[in-house]
Amino acid sequence: MPQTPHIEKHFTASETVRDLVIGMSDGLTVPFALAAGLSGAVDSTALIITAGLAEVAAGAIAMGLGGYLAARTDAEHYASEKAREERETREVPAVEEAEVAAVFRGYGLPEDTVAAVVAAIKADPNRWVEFMMRFELGMQVPDPRRARNSAITIALAYVAGGLVPLAPYFVLGSVHAALIGSVVTTLSALSVFGYVKGRFTTNRPLRSAGQTVLVGGLAAAAAFTIAKLIG
Amino acid sequence: MPQTPHIEKHFTASETVRDLVIGMSDGLTVPFALAAGLSGAVDSTALIITAGLAEVAAGAIAMGLGGYLAARTDAEHYASEKAREERETREVPAVEEAEVAAVFRGYGLPEDTVAAVVAAIKADPNRWVEFMMRFELGMQVPDPRRARNSAITIALAYVAGGLVPLAPYFVLGSVHAALIGSVVTTLSALSVFGYVKGRFTTNRPLRSAGQTVLVGGLAAAAAFTIAKLIG
Repeated sequence: MPQTPHIEKHFTASETVRDLVIGMSDGLTVPFALAAGLSGAVDSTALIITAGLAEVAAGAIAMGLGGYLAARTDAEHYASEKAREERETREVPAVEEAEVAAVFRGYGLPEDTVAAVVAAIKADPNRWVEFMMRFELGMQVPDPRRARNSAITIALAYVAGGLVPLAPYFVLGSVHAALIGSVVTTLSALSVFGYVKGRFTTNRPLRSAGQTVLVGGLAAAAAFTIAKLIG
Repeated sequence: MPQTPHIEKHFTASETVRDLVIGMSDGLTVPFALAAGLSGAVDSTALIITAGLAEVAAGAIAMGLGGYLAARTDAEHYASEKAREERETREVPAVEEAEVAAVFRGYGLPEDTVAAVVAAIKADPNRWVEFMMRFELGMQVPDPRRARNSAITIALAYVAGGLVPLAPYFVLGSVHAALIGSVVTTLSALSVFGYVKGRFTTNRPLRSAGQTVLVGGLAAAAAFTIAKLIG
């Protein structure tokens, strides 16, 4: 039997896939629910399209630009925490040494090994700071291009997702027919999306599909009920 | 000069604060933009209230229930990665040992110290797996109650945020007056919210306030323009 080399294939969703999932998940769900809700209250597909597209624009900007600024804040937060660790390794090195030692003592290392590890890590100030960032604070170096790419990906995915539930309102004349078309189209799209997402992130894609449909369906049902009660 | 004890006060937003910020940020922004957008196209505060409340219900469910399921998926992802590491430390221990060694070699430890560290870590299988999870994969043990609490916090924050921009449409008779009231009220709320958020997460609260207002304002302007063009 030929032996294949051991390759560790842990799943770590690429950040782009994650952004696509975030944007499309909300893009399929919220405009769908809004359109369904309004279908319970108004009698004009034009009005539902207007509200739907306004929501898509607002949601794409809120999620995309919001994501951009959040990523920038993360990068600055990393930089400020790093500056603090740099200062502390200079000003209170004994305290920081004790923190490194505590990490390894926690893994059951004997005292002489702990001392050797601490000595090796603190020998290079940059490495020491990087160690503290990663192991004490659990923070990883942020990618500087991430903020912009993330914003664009999330916003486009939101728009693409949001056009699916609205499409039947463009094509069909009556609100009732468009609602049925939107429910069928969107729940189908949500189940495919949930299945694919589940293939990437878990080993239970069917359950993922069911959950995605459930969230979309419940959101739409709630919006429909509320709009019906008021409208 | 009395010496105060060294207490490391790194900011790590409590998860509840983070959930509040997530929910309220979108809750203030998207219903605001939708209402502003519809104000450019329709002439009935009742209709804008209907659409706004439908959006709030849909958004709260999509974000809350979506957050719940995402947190559950994270917990399951952790469990499945942990099972894999457990299997690998049993079946291909040499490979996993080499991975531990590589981590420490990267920190410039001399070979005999690396060997001592590896020996100490692999002595306890549980600790070994925990080390791989945390240091190789950067994954931390998820809190089992997190999913439910997170869902409820995000959903309630979204509803609370979403009622702010809609309130003027309840109170004022004309769409035009309500739009102005909503813009003033919501941009004020966004600036306070952005300032408080900035105090917690960065040391530049004023810039955070400006950014939050900018996102809300741009989303509303885009929604208004689109609705005006179609409506």
